[in-house]
Formats: sequence, C-alpha cells, structure tokens
Amino acid sequence: MVRVLIWNEFYHEQKKASVRELYPDGMHGCIRDFLRLNGDLEIKTATQYDGNFNRDDINAGLTEELLDNTDVLIWWGHCHHKSVPDVWVDKIVSRVNEGMGFIALHSSHYSKVFKALMGTSCDLRWRLGDEHERLWNLSPNHPVMKGIPEYFELDGEETYGERFNIPKPQELLMVGWYAGGDVFRSVCTFTRGVGRILYIQPGHETYPTFKNTYIQRIITNGVYWAAPNVKVELGAVHAAVSPEELRKNGETPTERVR
Amino acid sequence: MVRVLIWNEFYHEQKKASVRELYPDGMHGCIRDFLRLNGDLEIKTATQYDGNFNRDDINAGLTEELLDNTDVLIWWGHCHHKSVPDVWVDKIVSRVNEGMGFIALHSSHYSKVFKALMGTSCDLRWRLGDEHERLWNLSPNHPVMKGIPEYFELDGEETYGERFNIPKPQELLMVGWYAGGDVFRSVCTFTRGVGRILYIQPGHETYPTFKNTYIQRIITNGVYWAAPNVKVELGAVHAAVSPEELRKNGETPTERVR
Amino acid sequence: MVRVLIWNEFYHEQKKASVRELYPDGMHGCIRDFLRLNGDLEIKTATQYDGNFNRDDINAGLTEELLDNTDVLIWWGHCHHKSVPDVWVDKIVSRVNEGMGFIALHSSHYSKVFKALMGTSCDLRWRLGDEHERLWNLSPNHPVMKGIPEYFELDGEETYGERFNIPKPQELLMVGWYAGGDVFRSVCTFTRGVGRILYIQPGHETYPTFKNTYIQRIITNGVYWAAPNVKVELGAVHAAVSPEELRKNGETPTERVR
Amino acid sequence: MVRVLIWNEFYHEQKKASVRELYPDGMHGCIRDFLRLNGDLEIKTATQYDGNFNRDDINAGLTEELLDNTDVLIWWGHCHHKSVPDVWVDKIVSRVNEGMGFIALHSSHYSKVFKALMGTSCDLRWRLGDEHERLWNLSPNHPVMKGIPEYFELDGEETYGERFNIPKPQELLMVGWYAGGDVFRSVCTFTRGVGRILYIQPGHETYPTFKNTYIQRIITNGVYWAAPNVKVELGAVHAAVSPEELRKNGETPTERVR
Repeated sequence: MVRVLIWNEFYHEQKKASVRELYPDGMHGCIRDFLRLNGDLEIKTATQYDGNFNRDDINAGLTEELLDNTDVLIWWGHCHHKSVPDVWVDKIVSRVNEGMGFIALHSSHYSKVFKALMGTSCDLRWRLGDEHERLWNLSPNHPVMKGIPEYFELDGEETYGERFNIPKPQELLMVGWYAGGDVFRSVCTFTRGVGRILYIQPGHETYPTFKNTYIQRIITNGVYWAAPNVKVELGAVHAAVSPEELRKNGETPTERVR
Repeated sequence: MVRVLIWNEFYHEQKKASVRELYPDGMHGCIRDFLRLNGDLEIKTATQYDGNFNRDDINAGLTEELLDNTDVLIWWGHCHHKSVPDVWVDKIVSRVNEGMGFIALHSSHYSKVFKALMGTSCDLRWRLGDEHERLWNLSPNHPVMKGIPEYFELDGEETYGERFNIPKPQELLMVGWYAGGDVFRSVCTFTRGVGRILYIQPGHETYPTFKNTYIQRIITNGVYWAAPNVKVELGAVHAAVSPEELRKNGETPTERVR
Repeated sequence: MVRVLIWNEFYHEQKKASVRELYPDGMHGCIRDFLRLNGDLEIKTATQYDGNFNRDDINAGLTEELLDNTDVLIWWGHCHHKSVPDVWVDKIVSRVNEGMGFIALHSSHYSKVFKALMGTSCDLRWRLGDEHERLWNLSPNHPVMKGIPEYFELDGEETYGERFNIPKPQELLMVGWYAGGDVFRSVCTFTRGVGRILYIQPGHETYPTFKNTYIQRIITNGVYWAAPNVKVELGAVHAAVSPEELRKNGETPTERVR
Repeated sequence: MVRVLIWNEFYHEQKKASVRELYPDGMHGCIRDFLRLNGDLEIKTATQYDGNFNRDDINAGLTEELLDNTDVLIWWGHCHHKSVPDVWVDKIVSRVNEGMGFIALHSSHYSKVFKALMGTSCDLRWRLGDEHERLWNLSPNHPVMKGIPEYFELDGEETYGERFNIPKPQELLMVGWYAGGDVFRSVCTFTRGVGRILYIQPGHETYPTFKNTYIQRIITNGVYWAAPNVKVELGAVHAAVSPEELRKNGETPTERVR
C-alpha cells in the first residue's frame, strides 16, 4: 500500500472557466481519479486554495499529519509558489531526504520545494505557442517508462526549452521535441538523501494533458518507483567507538541503515 | 518467474581440496542453493569445466538454448577467462544490450564479457593478504541494498584495491575497506543497452564468502533488480518517413519500444 | 587572473592556543600563503569573526563588492554555520549558479551554503579518533588530481565516515581510508547552474592538514578548475517567437549563452 | 603541443563527385586545415583508402609509430567499418584507456572502436531527409562548449534519432532538434580508463558541416579537452606488501599514478 498525497495550487481551475471545464474537480481530482484505478494506492489530496479562495491558509493546505502519512508527494504549482511558507518547504525537503518520494509536475519546476532540492534556479525558456510536443523515450528499461513506446505526441502543450537549469539528472528518461524548434529534458529523475524525485514537464492547465494515457501511465509508474524502499533518520552520527574497536571487542555493529 | 543461469569456471573446486571442502558442489552449487529459497526463480547452472575436466569444450558450457532462456546471467571466472570463445562473448554482450541482466562476481572483473561491456581494461590492485574487509552501504535506497545495514564485515577476502579501471558506475552501492589499507568500489551498477549489470567484488574461492548472509542477500536482490523490464531488438532503424510526415498523414506511430 | 576569496569562520584559531600555534594567521592565512605562490591569482580573505571576536557582524564578513569580484570562493566553517545570514547564503547560491566556483573545506559540508547547493542534509559519521587517513586517487585524469599520486597519507585527521548524505557526485576523485575502519568520499565535484563545486574532506583545525603538499596541490588545482569558463544571467526566458519563426523570417538568433 | 591524428575512411570523397566538390582534400583535409589555425597543434592525417583505392592495406592506414605519437585521435568512418582490423581496434581501445583522447565524428558511432569503447550496439534511428537541425547547448560551462551560443542551426544534415544505444554520457553537451520530428544526443562525452572520448553527431559527407564555424569550434575545443592530462600504464598491480605494512616500516609509497 503506497500512500500518495496530491498537492495542487488549485487556482486556475477556480479562476478560469476554460480550465474548470477541462478539470471540473481540479487537476488533483483528475490525477486522483486515474491513480484510483490501482487498488493498492491510498490517495489523499491537498490544495493551496480551498474552494472559497481562502488565501490566508498559512499552511498552504498542509499538516504534519498529512505529511506523516505520505509515501509519495505529487506537486502542481504555478502562480503562487511564493505563498508556500518556507517552514513547509524545509519540512518537505527533509522528508524527501528521509525517503519520501516527490513528483514535480510541469510548472512545479519553479516551486520552492523543487528548487531547494535541486540547488539551482531551475530557469528555463518558455512560450505559449500552442505547439505540439513529441516525447522520446531514452530509457525503455526504467520502471517509470514501463508501457511507454518509442515516442508519443501531445497535440498542444506550453513550450519549455533548454537550457533548463537543473543539476545533471540521475536518469534522463524522455526528451521533448516541440514544433517551434525547442527541445527539453522532459522526464528525469534525481535522488536526494534516500528519497527519489521525478520531474515531468507536460501538464499546463489549459491542456487535457492529465487525461492522456501515456502521461497517466508515467505518473502512475512514477508513484510506484518513488515509493520509499527504506526510510532513514537524518542527523550526524557520532561514532565515538571505531568499527575496528568494536571488532576487536567482539561487539556486533548495529544493523542500523542510514 | 525470473530465469537465472549461474556460470562458473569450476576449476579451483576440482583442483584444490580446500576449495572443494568449502564448496563441495562448486560455487555455482552454493549460489544455486541459496537462490532456490526463492520460489519464483528458475535456476540453471553451466560450467566451463565439467567434472572430468574436459578443457576441450569449445563452448565453455554454453548453448544458444541456455542463453535464449536466461533473464539474468551470473558469472564467476578466474584463471581461464581466455578460454571463453569470443563468439560467446559477443553473443552475451548482445544479449545484455537486448535486456538480459549480468552479475559479475569477484575475479570476473577480468572476464572477457565484463571487459567488453565496460570498454576498459578493468585492472585493479590486488593482494592475497588474508585481511578482513568491511563493506559500507552508500545507497540504502537501492533495490540491491534491501536489508543491508550501514556496514558488514567479512573475516577474510582477497584484497582488491583502487584504481579499479572501470567507467564511472551508474550507482556506487558499496565501498570496501581493507585492514591492509586499501579501498575498493565493491558493489556497483552499470547499464548497457537496456541490460542491467551488477559487479560484486567479494567471492574469492578460498573464503566462505558465498555462505555469508549479506552476500547472499546482495546476489538475490541483484537477480531481481537485473531481471529485464523490457527486451528490445538491436539494429539500426531506417525511419524513412519522418514523425512529422506520419503526423500530417494522420498515421499512428507504432508502439514499438526500442 | 583568477580572483579567489578565502572565507574562514576564524573562531578556533582565536579561542584555542594549539590551533593558533598551527595557524598563527588563521587557516585562511595559511591557504592564502600557498596560493600566493601562483602569480596569476588575485587573493582576498574574509572572516566571520574579526580579531576582536565581533560576533555582531550581521554580514559574516561578506560584502556585495567582495562577491562581485570573486571567481572562486573557498569556504571553511565549523561551529557558527547558523550565524551566517540566509540572505548571504541565497546570494552565494545564486552566484554559483551564475558561474562562481565554490570550494567547501572539511566541516563546511555542514555550512548553509553547501547544504543549499546539495539539496541534502549532508549528514555523516564522525569521530575524533586521531587516526591516520589514506586518500586514494580514483580519477588521475581529472584536472584537480594533477600531480596527485596513487595515494597519500595524513598522519592524523578527524574521521569522517559514510553514509555521507550528498547527491551522487559529478566525479568522485578520492576515497579516504581511516585506520579506525571507515571510508569516505573525500574529494568530489558537483555542478550547479554553470558553477563548479569541489568538496575536500581533510582540514580539521587541530591538524596541520593545510600544510600538506598534496592538500595544497588539490586546493590549488581546484581553484583553477573551479574558475568560471562562462558567466550567465539567471532568470526565466520568455522566448515569445519560436526558433522556427525566427528561421522562417531570416532573423539571426542572438549569440546569447545561458 | 597537442599531437592530433585525423583518420578518415576517405571513400565517399573519391567515389562521388558531389562529395569531392565539397571536400576536395577529403574531410580529413578540411579538418586539418581549420585545426592548423591553432599554432600549438601538430597535425597528421591517415586514411583507410589511399588515393588509388587500395583496399588491401591490412592496417587501414595506421602504424604503431603514428599511434605512438598521437595525443588525440579524430575518427570519421561510414561504409567500411568492418575492414578496420580487430588488432588495430584493440590497440586503439588500449591507447584510449592509457590516456589518448578519441573524437568520433558522425557515422563513426558505428565504428568498431567506438562500439568497443561503449560496450553497446550504438544503434540509432536515421533518415536522409535533408532536414535542418538545431543544436541546443546544455552545458555552457564545459570546455568543449566554449564560444558556442544557446543554439545554432545547420541547414541540412542526415537525421539521427533516439534511442541512440549508448551508455549514459558523462556529460550531455548538446541535444539536436530535427525538422522531421526527431531529437538526438548530438554532442556527448565519455571516459574510458584515463582517456577522454567525445562524440559529435553532425558531419554527413554530403553536407558542408565541417565548414560550419560552430562545428569547427566544437572540434577544436574537443581536441584541447581530450588531450591527456596524464598517461598511465595498464595492467593489474600485485601490491604484495600492504600500504599499512609500508607505513609501519617507514617506507614511502611510490608516487606512481595509475
């Protein structure tokens, strides 16, 4: 049983009729619905704005209890990154280091959490050009690419182009081709601490991207891949007695995993 | 069901009484026995020398049929690397590129197959110093490290030291510390084509290494990790009609995975 | 001409006679002196504590002008990481992303700057065991390893052990072996934005590490290696007109480098 | 003084008038000419076919003396990979491991040498579509990218598309975008032993690619980057006396670099 938390800014869906039409239950609702087809996922959602547009929620929809019960956190943010309090950013970065998976969707490349995990500005080129995108599969043996063909197409997406200012990915899974002439490292993975991170570029609010079969499969695969194998405690370890001393004394080292 | 083939030189066990005592059924027999505890593995063995020391087997114990039915190939060789025919080396390298997993044990760092997969000389420092080794876990979240603590010790092993002339590993899972003062990248992974490769340093024939619980766990984990997610066909693809043409013509691309 | 800024906490040298004896001009003074042997470096120093132990310097010894004129920043901190103001941490992280080199020495693994660049907790095992350390050269072809032999020894150092919670290094240059039984990724590189980062483990204040020829060579090599090839401006780029449009219109793209 | 050897198949230029018109002195001649503008390079050329189309040269134009005096080997091959004798392939792979740089141009992705260094089949998608290509700069701080802007265009090239079956590059410097809808990892680096390897995709014989300023700059930068920092001897090292023994006996370790 993998416990998933889908966090959404939930702004565009409330402000703009055309987005609401695409995603009547919010993008988080759409993602929740296709993830639900997997019987072994326990899925919760949280939003930065509630249905009454309460911008005053100092916790951006997050609680300790929610995070305590999350194995994989999916994140969609765009216009209100700055309103996510630093204290929650720090908490999430620590959780990832301890083992929680983190999946950053589309414009979440600019979220505080993703930038803090990367250590870079995460800048990129962009354009609302209504161009079609073709995503090429570079790593067919990676668990996240299970069921993804050589390439697939999206009839329209926001164009994201290089140089995307991220550290060299652990694995570069897909490269995007745009009709306007740009390329992008569209699906890539990172590790921070023992936590796994997946970045997925498609997912602009004005397109039905989250209804695309392949995108749904990538996110679903991603949830299983990012689920922790192990959780560890952070903190320096003062190993006052050396392993060689322990050995000489016939003491068994702990089976601790860090 | 993962189909495992354990290939062993099977020389020392026949030539040297002390090794035979440690591994009466050969090292391949010992590995087979602990892998068998997993109900979902189909395990075969093959040896370079048969029980009558037939050095004339031009195929080093391999057949097309064996390879055709192998998902993960475990390899232990030491003194007779040169007798493995190049034609079989080429076949195995291709199989790995197509998706077969490959686990190289100990002195197999110098096997023709491993060297061909690496593209390097695979040289290292070595010493028969009867030193104890301590293996440190650098990647506790990697599937191959499941159940492996912070570190564990082997009371004796052949000392392997850096610089180990391999390409930068995909993931460095364990670093070995030796009482004599050497360090070694003892457990590390590589990818060639869509095939996964695992190198495991411990396993000298004069030590009961393959009876060690943690070593058994690493090899077992390795088998599951190296099992193919996907198998692909090799060969250049002449894509005479461009993806853009296909799109304009409303033709659907194949779902081929390469 | 590479412009180097050596930043030192400068606490132990003032508080503890034995450290002062080793480094009468501070560790920054020692590093400045051996770097000065290279005629083409312009070297400045800055310290968190001035000679009168003024803990009130809200800027930790830094100014905009200093940073504006720095190509490579060398950092040594230990006990007063927390007193470095976040605003300066953010500035330095941005500078690195824009191209400034950053060399983190020893306990600076726990500095705010290094942790922010890594995105991890940078935890490690440690022990004041007065053990000797042997550093093994894994990457003799790397510019930072120029002139460094197969291995070298330090008669005493603070023991740092794995698991060091850092992202996978870009290049792992040296692995440390400690008499007490630990290993450590002692010299390693990272890239953030276009800035190069070098971590060097040896350098505890109670040992004459910065007087060691090989350590001096590594730091010197590191300065030249980390010096920027290029500096870039951060920020998203709104590329409203696509490259394909530009091409159709016969417009030349800018030669901008990002 | 970097000693460069440019090796060319030299087939198309002799067989096809249109190619001869583009490269009257062969592609090796064109490359030699722009490299010559750098005063500190010593440049030689070798060709698989001589001007009389002597297909019988069992050494494919190579001699021990030539290789002995080469720091960086540039390679262009296409139709006659198979005629390069294995013995020379093995020698070149060893030289690279010892420190020689290797730059593989365009269709040399399928040369025996490149495939042996990679350990993969180096398959790719291809099409003679006369499409324009746009190459995007992903690593502006890499020495090979010095002077290369955000992107540049080639009015025509053979289309090479993913999945390019290579191991994960050490650094991915440029990604190519093709008008027909493909993407390609067009410029990337690898290390084998202490030797540096650069792959550069553009350079089909029917296009004036080697006359393009940016391509010339990439190859020129590549020569300086791939030139050895250090050369090492291959072979296992039997370190019979441990470093700890040496230390106890007060013996100094050699300053050998491996």
